[in-house]
Amino acid sequence: MARWEPGARERLIVAAVDLFAEQGYDSTTVAQIAERAGVTKSTFFRHFPDKRELLAAGQETLSRLLAEGITEAPAGATPLEAVAAGLQRASDAMGPLNREIGPRLKAAVAASTELQERDALKSVSMAAAMTAALTARGVPGAAAALAGELGLLAFKRGYAEWADTDADHGLAHYTLAALSELRAATATLG
Amino acid sequence: MARWEPGARERLIVAAVDLFAEQGYDSTTVAQIAERAGVTKSTFFRHFPDKRELLAAGQETLSRLLAEGITEAPAGATPLEAVAAGLQRASDAMGPLNREIGPRLKAAVAASTELQERDALKSVSMAAAMTAALTARGVPGAAAALAGELGLLAFKRGYAEWADTDADHGLAHYTLAALSELRAATATLG
Repeated sequence: MARWEPGARERLIVAAVDLFAEQGYDSTTVAQIAERAGVTKSTFFRHFPDKRELLAAGQETLSRLLAEGITEAPAGATPLEAVAAGLQRASDAMGPLNREIGPRLKAAVAASTELQERDALKSVSMAAAMTAALTARGVPGAAAALAGELGLLAFKRGYAEWADTDADHGLAHYTLAALSELRAATATLG
Repeated sequence: MARWEPGARERLIVAAVDLFAEQGYDSTTVAQIAERAGVTKSTFFRHFPDKRELLAAGQETLSRLLAEGITEAPAGATPLEAVAAGLQRASDAMGPLNREIGPRLKAAVAASTELQERDALKSVSMAAAMTAALTARGVPGAAAALAGELGLLAFKRGYAEWADTDADHGLAHYTLAALSELRAATATLG
């Protein structure tokens, strides 16, 4: 029988992020990730084509959920109400694994230029996905670009707070509060 | 006598960006860039440690100028007035070379994931530089983050328009107009 366990995907992600933080992204091999996760290399390759894609998988889902929430917001929603719906959708999909790997991933990113570039592309893609979904709703260019960036900032600021606290709220609590704070800040820019 | 000509640096940049667009970033060698620019490989290495840094050099300057303009804005300036001063400072440093390579660089970036990641990190770094300079002026966290993103959007939108037109204005004309448009859009987000 093949060596296959439920939760292997999640264990692979945690193992990879830990190894990236400990010894760097470049020095970490698929074999090491599999070993740390307690699975075989072929199990790794059943889940991910390579270590690069291991990080990308969740990122595409995130952009998709943000955009879907915006697209499916009520027709009369303002741009920021639509962004709030996107944040709600994406935040609701984030569970304990996402919360746990946040600080580890941050450490790994801080230690690797390659991961910084990938993380930056993730941010740019998230904002672009929200902006495109807003544009498709008829929001004019400048407002759509701006609301997309507000959504990105709200997600990042909310996520950082969520990962940093022991309080028993879901991620949506923090991302939506961050969006409100940013919205209030628009009035203070002069 | 060493083979050295004024303008070699600029020719190397144009040659590199053209080759990246034509045949991809990964497939382009330092030897090819030097040949296209009409200089020796040692001339290349007098200017840049590798092809990667050729792209990074201008990006660091850009972030520095944006931040300096913000830092040196009058004490009473609002966050967006300080951002406008940063845009003015950075825009004034961009000449015909920057305008000319804009569309070529865009083509090269569209064709390469690696360049997309680098371009994303450039964007994130520019926004972060502006946000840090605003924070140092005492602007609160959410407002500083937001104003930094507004500055980035204004720079990108203004630059795209500048590269796209034959009109005889400097870049600052476009980046400052984009900032005004974005500022007006903050009132339409709901």
